[in-house]
Amino acid sequence: MNKKKFARESEVIMTEMVLPNDTNTLHNLMGGRMMHFIDIASAIAAQKHSNRTVVTASMDSVSFEKPIKLGNVVTIRAKVTRAFNSSMEVYAEVSAEDIPSGTKQITNKAFCTFVAVDQSGNPIQVPELVPETAEEQRLFHGALRRRQLRLILAGRMKPDDATELKSLFVDNEE
Amino acid sequence: MNKKKFARESEVIMTEMVLPNDTNTLHNLMGGRMMHFIDIASAIAAQKHSNRTVVTASMDSVSFEKPIKLGNVVTIRAKVTRAFNSSMEVYAEVSAEDIPSGTKQITNKAFCTFVAVDQSGNPIQVPELVPETAEEQRLFHGALRRRQLRLILAGRMKPDDATELKSLFVDNEE
Amino acid sequence: MNKKKFARESEVIMTEMVLPNDTNTLHNLMGGRMMHFIDIASAIAAQKHSNRTVVTASMDSVSFEKPIKLGNVVTIRAKVTRAFNSSMEVYAEVSAEDIPSGTKQITNKAFCTFVAVDQSGNPIQVPELVPETAEEQRLFHGALRRRQLRLILAGRMKPDDATELKSLFVDNEE
Amino acid sequence: MNKKKFARESEVIMTEMVLPNDTNTLHNLMGGRMMHFIDIASAIAAQKHSNRTVVTASMDSVSFEKPIKLGNVVTIRAKVTRAFNSSMEVYAEVSAEDIPSGTKQITNKAFCTFVAVDQSGNPIQVPELVPETAEEQRLFHGALRRRQLRLILAGRMKPDDATELKSLFVDNEE
Amino acid sequence: MNKKKFARESEVIMTEMVLPNDTNTLHNLMGGRMMHFIDIASAIAAQKHSNRTVVTASMDSVSFEKPIKLGNVVTIRAKVTRAFNSSMEVYAEVSAEDIPSGTKQITNKAFCTFVAVDQSGNPIQVPELVPETAEEQRLFHGALRRRQLRLILAGRMKPDDATELKSLFVDNEE
Amino acid sequence: MNKKKFARESEVIMTEMVLPNDTNTLHNLMGGRMMHFIDIASAIAAQKHSNRTVVTASMDSVSFEKPIKLGNVVTIRAKVTRAFNSSMEVYAEVSAEDIPSGTKQITNKAFCTFVAVDQSGNPIQVPELVPETAEEQRLFHGALRRRQLRLILAGRMKPDDATELKSLFVDNEE
Repeated sequence: MNKKKFARESEVIMTEMVLPNDTNTLHNLMGGRMMHFIDIASAIAAQKHSNRTVVTASMDSVSFEKPIKLGNVVTIRAKVTRAFNSSMEVYAEVSAEDIPSGTKQITNKAFCTFVAVDQSGNPIQVPELVPETAEEQRLFHGALRRRQLRLILAGRMKPDDATELKSLFVDNEE
Repeated sequence: MNKKKFARESEVIMTEMVLPNDTNTLHNLMGGRMMHFIDIASAIAAQKHSNRTVVTASMDSVSFEKPIKLGNVVTIRAKVTRAFNSSMEVYAEVSAEDIPSGTKQITNKAFCTFVAVDQSGNPIQVPELVPETAEEQRLFHGALRRRQLRLILAGRMKPDDATELKSLFVDNEE
Repeated sequence: MNKKKFARESEVIMTEMVLPNDTNTLHNLMGGRMMHFIDIASAIAAQKHSNRTVVTASMDSVSFEKPIKLGNVVTIRAKVTRAFNSSMEVYAEVSAEDIPSGTKQITNKAFCTFVAVDQSGNPIQVPELVPETAEEQRLFHGALRRRQLRLILAGRMKPDDATELKSLFVDNEE
Repeated sequence: MNKKKFARESEVIMTEMVLPNDTNTLHNLMGGRMMHFIDIASAIAAQKHSNRTVVTASMDSVSFEKPIKLGNVVTIRAKVTRAFNSSMEVYAEVSAEDIPSGTKQITNKAFCTFVAVDQSGNPIQVPELVPETAEEQRLFHGALRRRQLRLILAGRMKPDDATELKSLFVDNEE
Repeated sequence: MNKKKFARESEVIMTEMVLPNDTNTLHNLMGGRMMHFIDIASAIAAQKHSNRTVVTASMDSVSFEKPIKLGNVVTIRAKVTRAFNSSMEVYAEVSAEDIPSGTKQITNKAFCTFVAVDQSGNPIQVPELVPETAEEQRLFHGALRRRQLRLILAGRMKPDDATELKSLFVDNEE
Repeated sequence: MNKKKFARESEVIMTEMVLPNDTNTLHNLMGGRMMHFIDIASAIAAQKHSNRTVVTASMDSVSFEKPIKLGNVVTIRAKVTRAFNSSMEVYAEVSAEDIPSGTKQITNKAFCTFVAVDQSGNPIQVPELVPETAEEQRLFHGALRRRQLRLILAGRMKPDDATELKSLFVDNEE
């Protein structure tokens, strides 16, 4: 009999100012630096859900369509979407704000998974995640499909067995 | 009439020693820090192919199955797999070596895409990529399928139109 | 006739994980590193209130009574308390969480002031701050007293003229 | 029976060149970064006086009136002003030099306090501080008053009991 | 009876992109930052030869004739040249590439020495180095002469005893 | 007719605390990180002598005989030894202090050269250096010899022409 926790209990808000060493020669935030921000915010969300040390198991694909400039304020909001035994999926939404020009937009959406570990580094069970809002429920249900895609991409599941993933070819939830 | 270049002309080898600030409380390399290494090595490969400034357009999913320890030597090998007008796909393979214990293993495989830009930041055409070895040809042919998956995941292509991707459910090239 | 803004419109939440280079030989977060976090979170709050570039004008005294350990999660909440022509006072509250042990506590409280500047670096007027909640009103009213203390400590006001500050010796609002 | 040491025995001179990541979008040194420099220089002064590991207990208010530019040379001079059982007050004076233009000025003055600790992290007695020069004596005598102000600001002393601090309203020593 | 290894088994290729914090106010890579890159690449080469933890024993003189700009790609190639009991000499060659302008040149050549140590930090014997190519043989033979120069410069050998070094005044191998 | 300046006018004292990311897996300061400290302190000394922007021209060989531990305090003292048209030689002496154990020792001695440049990056004449103390005179006279060694090592002078260097084989000044 396992403990249950709500998605909102794991929410993390992280704010970063884009500094010179985070940028390329066009003075835009580098993609890998953004992944570093997403990984840390998401790891903290997974820690909060599990009350454990966590290790990153995977980062799903991320696209970078809108440049983020030097001096912009980047906000990452991360929240656990679903728990599976010792692993958790976290959804992170990144927005960037150019304060003097008054523009703010969502720039990236990312899913990462983490495994909770004990002091010896062995996986350990985590609480169940209970979604409340409509968006939390949508993310909760999509988690199975994304999990199958990860397993196929990692060569650990045969596409034929990915019954959930097939719906990707019918409706697209993100 | 466009210039052509070989995959090997873009090859980049990057070596990093894992330092304390790159690690979590288990003294393992953090996932986001690894993505930062992959992004930089891959961006240099795309620069070498295009002789242009490049910006990261996407990073495909990466899984982290084997922990990399503090003091380990990380080697990232990156090479352009295919060019499309102004964009390029780069394949990066990461290996980690624990020198005193004499162990070395491939820990991650990643695909990123980059767009070449001119001085004003506008996309500009890049040379065609000519694959030579069997592996380069396999990566070249798989690039179309991965591109369709990215477009679907970004909500910019309908799954029905992803004719190449359907083969993902038949044979898995990576 | 000047624009008015609410305190809550400037609120910033910043989350940081304590990394090895942030710590001293006891593996505790260094005080100056904490001040760096507070300065950045507070500067972003002042930017949000003024929609301008801002420069730090002062940081009030901060005490460090509870050690924050390597791997802890530090959360800084910053909000503008009052605006004066081109300057703003920001209140930041720092809490630290040791997630595996489940402990979380407020570790520091700090006041900083910032000046909004235009493109040439000259001070420029900012919106008035309108406090709403009881705590925002308490902070708004205490701001005059703290301002007099800053001016006296900087040798720019005679203690005799600090009519508001004298109440420090009668009731203590923080 | 306790050892005694002179103020000059603890003097520390630290020189830093302002690098891009230390600056805001106006290319000026950020306030929090300066506090980090002051904290490290002052902690070393307190270590030298006590021959112990030390932890920061407080940083008094600091004002930033003169911008320090990218590429400037910052010099921090720190010296213990007075010792109290296991704690020490350190005075730090910061000057900034723009070498090509030949300008140099004192930009900040700061007081921090530190506690000396043993291997278990428990406070341990430190040598008495013996002031020699006129300035050292002035700083030594002002230390009591600043200590009362810190205690009042931290809510740990009633203003009525701050007999030394009342002189702040009569003469201002810094 | 000691193990033997080839020079090529220790080869390390390290690639770095020059970031803002690596540069001075002219936006050129700072000399000390370059030495840091050389030290890390060379240390990894010495680790690979010895399969041990290594510590830097010396860095020979390096000249900086060609500026390397912000955004340039720096490649360091390092390879052990000769082993002496517990120490190894490593040769590193640095080249810098400005990709958009299509220029690439060798900018620096450096020799460092390292000592292999066991878990207690005591020196421990390393495999013999077997040179294969003409360049490896030239570097192998010059190693004795450079070693005598290091000993003289460190005041640990009398110039009269430096029989090998005298050839420096006759033919110059680097 | 050229301005003259004293050696002492260029003196720089830089103090650094060894942080985790500065160290290798033995928790000792890495050699390349030390070179970075020496380069910055010496560049500031050369800036002070010339009142110009300076670029590193060379760093002479440095040996690392004594390990410097995590948490140690490193002090670098740098001073111009001699000026030649647009270039200057700087001598830096590094000492390391383990404060809790009360040990302090000189760990390294280094010579670097710098070139003063104008706004366009072209070399520009610097003041003559006037040595005062006995040590400053010894360093001033040895500078010619070290300069010839640098030119020979860089392949820009024939050993036969190095009349000053030949004394290296007779008396050794450092």
